Amino acid sequence: MGGDNAPGMVIDGAALARERHPNLRFLLFGDEAVIAPLLSRHRALRGVVEVRHTDVQVSSNDRPSQALRHGQQSSMRLAINAVGEGEAGGVVSAGNTGALMAMSKFVLKTMPGIDRPAICSFLPTLRGESVMLDLGANVECGQDNLVQFAIMGAAFARTILGLPRPTVGLLNVGQEEMKGNEAVKGAAAVLNQADLPLRFHGFIEGDDIAKGTTDVVVTDGFTGNVALKTVEGTAKLFSQFLRTAFRQSTLSRLGYLLAKPSMKALRDRIDPRHHNGGVLLGLNGVSVKSHGGMDDVGFATAIGLTADMVADDLIGRIIADMAHFSDSGDVTDDRPNETHDWAVAR
Amino acid sequence: MGGDNAPGMVIDGAALARERHPNLRFLLFGDEAVIAPLLSRHRALRGVVEVRHTDVQVSSNDRPSQALRHGQQSSMRLAINAVGEGEAGGVVSAGNTGALMAMSKFVLKTMPGIDRPAICSFLPTLRGESVMLDLGANVECGQDNLVQFAIMGAAFARTILGLPRPTVGLLNVGQEEMKGNEAVKGAAAVLNQADLPLRFHGFIEGDDIAKGTTDVVVTDGFTGNVALKTVEGTAKLFSQFLRTAFRQSTLSRLGYLLAKPSMKALRDRIDPRHHNGGVLLGLNGVSVKSHGGMDDVGFATAIGLTADMVADDLIGRIIADMAHFSDSGDVTDDRPNETHDWAVAR
Repeated sequence: MGGDNAPGMVIDGAALARERHPNLRFLLFGDEAVIAPLLSRHRALRGVVEVRHTDVQVSSNDRPSQALRHGQQSSMRLAINAVGEGEAGGVVSAGNTGALMAMSKFVLKTMPGIDRPAICSFLPTLRGESVMLDLGANVECGQDNLVQFAIMGAAFARTILGLPRPTVGLLNVGQEEMKGNEAVKGAAAVLNQADLPLRFHGFIEGDDIAKGTTDVVVTDGFTGNVALKTVEGTAKLFSQFLRTAFRQSTLSRLGYLLAKPSMKALRDRIDPRHHNGGVLLGLNGVSVKSHGGMDDVGFATAIGLTADMVADDLIGRIIADMAHFSDSGDVTDDRPNETHDWAVAR
Repeated sequence: MGGDNAPGMVIDGAALARERHPNLRFLLFGDEAVIAPLLSRHRALRGVVEVRHTDVQVSSNDRPSQALRHGQQSSMRLAINAVGEGEAGGVVSAGNTGALMAMSKFVLKTMPGIDRPAICSFLPTLRGESVMLDLGANVECGQDNLVQFAIMGAAFARTILGLPRPTVGLLNVGQEEMKGNEAVKGAAAVLNQADLPLRFHGFIEGDDIAKGTTDVVVTDGFTGNVALKTVEGTAKLFSQFLRTAFRQSTLSRLGYLLAKPSMKALRDRIDPRHHNGGVLLGLNGVSVKSHGGMDDVGFATAIGLTADMVADDLIGRIIADMAHFSDSGDVTDDRPNETHDWAVAR
């Protein structure tokens, strides 16, 4: 029920996703009276969708704590519960991000060895696609958080991009060792030493994100959120300038008509609908946030990403990597995990 | 002597700048044997340039502390000294940023009421141009730093953009009051109350930079540096994608030829040479960093900016604003200024 165009785009998106992933089956949580007529338009979804009715919804203005306390019968919470109980492989929502994170953390629990989950997503680059995290879950991050993000991001790139040994860069204000704050310097020192299934590239800068200098970009949630939105804003600015340029004269309008098919290919490459899906990494279950403004095409991308993570057992891979990292003595302290109840999660 | 194309582009840039600012006079610090023949090519510079010879240069690899200790006879240091001694109105350098900041701070001293200087620059936006700071001088910033950046940035926008009461936004991960780290929340609380010659807009997000939501964008030097370079990287990515699109077919190549004059106008709008010049704000003197990779056009922009700041007495305006801010009791503590020797600067 979450997102600007819900639940229509959720149902249309499910139908689209099933074209590419023909084995997918869906549990839909929400208002059955609204969902049923929308569903009836899709023959392809017949027999593969089960609707679980609830009247309660998390609103986009709810604080995470509010949603956690009062949203126990909400469509979002019931969907997450289905993952926690093993009934569903993963959950996708275009609703309130803070509520989705808080509820997912509460129900699915944080993984062994991970202090705080992070939001991870794809970005288009000159070389193809890169993975970036944290995109806003944690506004303040220490050295250990950044190291854990690197391990999770690399596992994500191995699983979803199929890279056997992804390169990892730590976002900083310069490439020299002496640059940056204590957190990035400390994390770089650990990653330089650690024996992990990744190649640590060292520090990278803001322009390296679009260059695709590394497969994985690691940063704190404050910087990551600002950088992600800066990319979006700059792309929109450029598109707007381009539109103005094409409209400037009769000749340029004619030029646009001739170049139109090629311009469409350009638009596709930077179309955010093809990179939709913010993965909440670090939980004992797959939970994915779709951008709230997405249409069915974008929502189908997020569903496909969720299906891939489940099929390739991303969670198991991260748990294995973290166990290996902890065993090899790279962990600098033995503080109990912040949530420290992960062991009883299932 | 600093920058990739120095000293040629410095001298060519000075000649260009003089076309737009016909009263400018220059002191050039560096290797006279190299400078003299380059200078002789410019009739326009005859009689308005004085060369001060020195063999010593700060290299781009020097640490700031190194430059400060061993670079006392360097071209960079002598140029800054000329500002400190009142011989020059301002200094422009395309050399080592850290060294320029350290030496400028040492020679010109930090302003009364300012704890730490910041790097400030223009960015192109949908609405025109915005001012952003800090772009990398301070990787960790507290609430007081951000408030001071807001005051300095607003004075800069008033002086250089001619806006009587510029709007100021604080970069954050969301627009709601509860969002963000302690520094941004604290700074917002102070700016909401303070009586200052600016309109405080509140929190803005990464995409607001390119939108031009506010005239001034305030952030810490870590986030600001990453965001600035992310803008640059995304603009380059987009240009590259656009080039590929135009080359895709015979039709699109023809389309490009027709639209070429309009495309040139687009390129001009986002040309970094027209926004060149990182101002070290918060010092008792005008010190400007040109991007190291600039050509003469870009260097001339930085010279012009320097001339404008001197002509409009930017330093005096900031000192007055800070004095007014401190008098009105908005300052939350009375810690002595970190450098606390500003009073003897001149």
